[in-house]
Amino acid sequence: MNDVSGTLPEKDIHGTVFSDDHPLAGCDDEIDGLRETGSLFYQRGWSVGTSSNYSVILGDDPLELLVTASGKDKSRLTQRDFVRVNADGGPVVPSQPKSSAETLLHVVVAKELNVGAVLHTHSIWSTLLSNLFFDQGHISIEDYEMLKGLAGIDTHDYSYRLEIFENTQDIPTLAAQVRERLTDRANPLKYGYLIRRHGLYTWGRDLEEARRHVEILEFLLECEGRRLMLEGAIGAN
Amino acid sequence: MNDVSGTLPEKDIHGTVFSDDHPLAGCDDEIDGLRETGSLFYQRGWSVGTSSNYSVILGDDPLELLVTASGKDKSRLTQRDFVRVNADGGPVVPSQPKSSAETLLHVVVAKELNVGAVLHTHSIWSTLLSNLFFDQGHISIEDYEMLKGLAGIDTHDYSYRLEIFENTQDIPTLAAQVRERLTDRANPLKYGYLIRRHGLYTWGRDLEEARRHVEILEFLLECEGRRLMLEGAIGAN
Amino acid sequence: MNDVSGTLPEKDIHGTVFSDDHPLAGCDDEIDGLRETGSLFYQRGWSVGTSSNYSVILGDDPLELLVTASGKDKSRLTQRDFVRVNADGGPVVPSQPKSSAETLLHVVVAKELNVGAVLHTHSIWSTLLSNLFFDQGHISIEDYEMLKGLAGIDTHDYSYRLEIFENTQDIPTLAAQVRERLTDRANPLKYGYLIRRHGLYTWGRDLEEARRHVEILEFLLECEGRRLMLEGAIGAN
Amino acid sequence: MNDVSGTLPEKDIHGTVFSDDHPLAGCDDEIDGLRETGSLFYQRGWSVGTSSNYSVILGDDPLELLVTASGKDKSRLTQRDFVRVNADGGPVVPSQPKSSAETLLHVVVAKELNVGAVLHTHSIWSTLLSNLFFDQGHISIEDYEMLKGLAGIDTHDYSYRLEIFENTQDIPTLAAQVRERLTDRANPLKYGYLIRRHGLYTWGRDLEEARRHVEILEFLLECEGRRLMLEGAIGAN
Repeated sequence: MNDVSGTLPEKDIHGTVFSDDHPLAGCDDEIDGLRETGSLFYQRGWSVGTSSNYSVILGDDPLELLVTASGKDKSRLTQRDFVRVNADGGPVVPSQPKSSAETLLHVVVAKELNVGAVLHTHSIWSTLLSNLFFDQGHISIEDYEMLKGLAGIDTHDYSYRLEIFENTQDIPTLAAQVRERLTDRANPLKYGYLIRRHGLYTWGRDLEEARRHVEILEFLLECEGRRLMLEGAIGAN
Repeated sequence: MNDVSGTLPEKDIHGTVFSDDHPLAGCDDEIDGLRETGSLFYQRGWSVGTSSNYSVILGDDPLELLVTASGKDKSRLTQRDFVRVNADGGPVVPSQPKSSAETLLHVVVAKELNVGAVLHTHSIWSTLLSNLFFDQGHISIEDYEMLKGLAGIDTHDYSYRLEIFENTQDIPTLAAQVRERLTDRANPLKYGYLIRRHGLYTWGRDLEEARRHVEILEFLLECEGRRLMLEGAIGAN
Repeated sequence: MNDVSGTLPEKDIHGTVFSDDHPLAGCDDEIDGLRETGSLFYQRGWSVGTSSNYSVILGDDPLELLVTASGKDKSRLTQRDFVRVNADGGPVVPSQPKSSAETLLHVVVAKELNVGAVLHTHSIWSTLLSNLFFDQGHISIEDYEMLKGLAGIDTHDYSYRLEIFENTQDIPTLAAQVRERLTDRANPLKYGYLIRRHGLYTWGRDLEEARRHVEILEFLLECEGRRLMLEGAIGAN
Repeated sequence: MNDVSGTLPEKDIHGTVFSDDHPLAGCDDEIDGLRETGSLFYQRGWSVGTSSNYSVILGDDPLELLVTASGKDKSRLTQRDFVRVNADGGPVVPSQPKSSAETLLHVVVAKELNVGAVLHTHSIWSTLLSNLFFDQGHISIEDYEMLKGLAGIDTHDYSYRLEIFENTQDIPTLAAQVRERLTDRANPLKYGYLIRRHGLYTWGRDLEEARRHVEILEFLLECEGRRLMLEGAIGAN
């Protein structure tokens, strides 16, 4: 663990205490929310092996995000496994742990959209389906009642298009591609996107909505994966 | 959260305290039961993404139900995420949060049958099978020992017919369709029904029995789904 | 709940207190073990919807078993959800709740074998495979390292034959069939057996061993089920 | 349970207390870590039925390991379910419980590589895929982002080769085969290996890294298993 201070007391699982001059002072609630999110998503199998990263937007002017530090076990995030980053994805103050390698993918969403949280998960089904549908560039998810849980959708009679980007280790380039699609007026990204054999990015106006979007998109991806297997096995498709 | 009072203390996870003039005063046990149900069903994956809604019948004359409020996270229902509604599905008193959009589907069962609780879940398997069997209008579930867990069935040698309704956002019309089938003397709905790509409604004489029916019907749907996949894959069907 | 005494205090989840003249006095440890077993098996999905029943042998001369009462939720067994039964499967004293309808299937094993506990579970995979292999009368499970967890097996190079009985509501007749196979010198039942579309019975010299046998047989059944699906889907079998 | 002392107090789940002359004195942290690992892996279904065994390297000169005792329930390891063994796999002091039958498979890795922990798990998917790919001798796992969680891999653009050994009860011979491949300069084992129909061995520079490797390899095996089923069912492969 990248301990940023030898004297930080750890009060209990979900109570946090930082001294006033600590870089994370005042972020207790956001940290609690993301720690709980990590524990939940780990149990669901969406954030194992230190995969995934999460952020909450702390302020707009100047833009500031609280992001998970790089390489942390999401089932047991400590109060110090977080970094405050600015609009360039760099640390707000220098003494913090390294932020996730994918920090720019959080920043780009925070810059372009009016959101409060960005969540990246790494599930079996998002890994598989992002590869299976890669050539067509997106997965269409239609007519499920569960679609109504996505903010602003009020009917199951809806065709949702979840875009898929090629995986890369060149995060700035991927961030630029995502930005372009976020601001594509004809066909903007909605609710999230997939990265091939890598996982899901989604967001919401606050952490609660972003978590709901994760649950809904993961549910729908599992539905589509199992539907294909079931209909394939019985010769129905 | 639609907080109906700024002064409500939250004693602990399963102890509830309302002042005497609060709309939910006296409903503590029912609220505890539904909160526990939500936590359990969320863990099972049947109520994620704020899907699902649950009710307990509070009285017959006049008919009154305690229903989950609209859009709540079922894994963490608070004491205030509930509404008392009347025989029209409207709030008993005006200062309550909005009840679930599907409240009328609870009311219609409470009116027509002698039940104590109505539960709606939204699982992967009920979503998939309600679509796969939609054209034939029902799923037949036969010869499973687990059928004996449905109230009144005392042998596995039974053919259960689980009806499927088309999904719609027009809840009053769907409620009317359900009422018609509940009172169909030749072939009444038994134990519950499916809504296409949406999920399961079931009920019981009390919350415990309704929960048992959910567990049994979800088990049987998963059995049927996996049986089809298994037999399809090995060419046995 | 069939409360056999209005004055029984419930100390805590796993501490039990009975007055000296209570039918269950002195069974505290066995009751704790079975309650914990129920909670665990429910979580695994092997004992949902009040299915399953469990027993511990209390004495040999005369034979006496502690059996789960009929129709109890296995996730939340209370201290009073148990019955002491004799060699006929009847209650040792008359004031107890009704024992499980399948009590005789516990008694027959306790009579014929030197065991300390008998456990019945009701999983998805045992339900499906007991039907798929019913015509051949058994499932062969071979060459898995996990077989070594069955008492007395010290190599994976072993072919285990898990017999399947037809389901019936005539428990005395099924118990007689099981007894015949338990004492079949040429080919006795080992470790357990399946009932078609119903589930698994297994046993062990004590509750710990019986639980281990459940875990191992359920693991092996899931392996066989998934192996068939996988090899079927890719055309490898 | 092989109780090595009648007077050992068990303070609580994760606090350990040994008298100064106890063979396990001073190993409290390592024991806590492995007990927690067992609980976690059991919940994931990777260590059921007393399968699996885990070790932590206590010292290099002379080599000493802390290994799980033979046949213990991994969901409820007690403080005394561990053995200190030497470079021959034998107990450091004679009064300890019997160590796992596969102790030599831990020792051989500790001798040849600079590791801090060795973990063996026994999952459904490792059991199935180690058999399905046995004839080709390995499973190739390519292009998954999750591969980056393996120590030293910094891109998804990587082809990982997970070798498969035939299962045997002759552990010294298997240990010799593993040693040979560990030190094969042209093509050394990396991160772990499979044993046919038996499970996964992996390791890391400390327990945390070894656990991460288990999570990642189990995730990748499940991905490959489900990918084969999905693509097989829909005719995509």
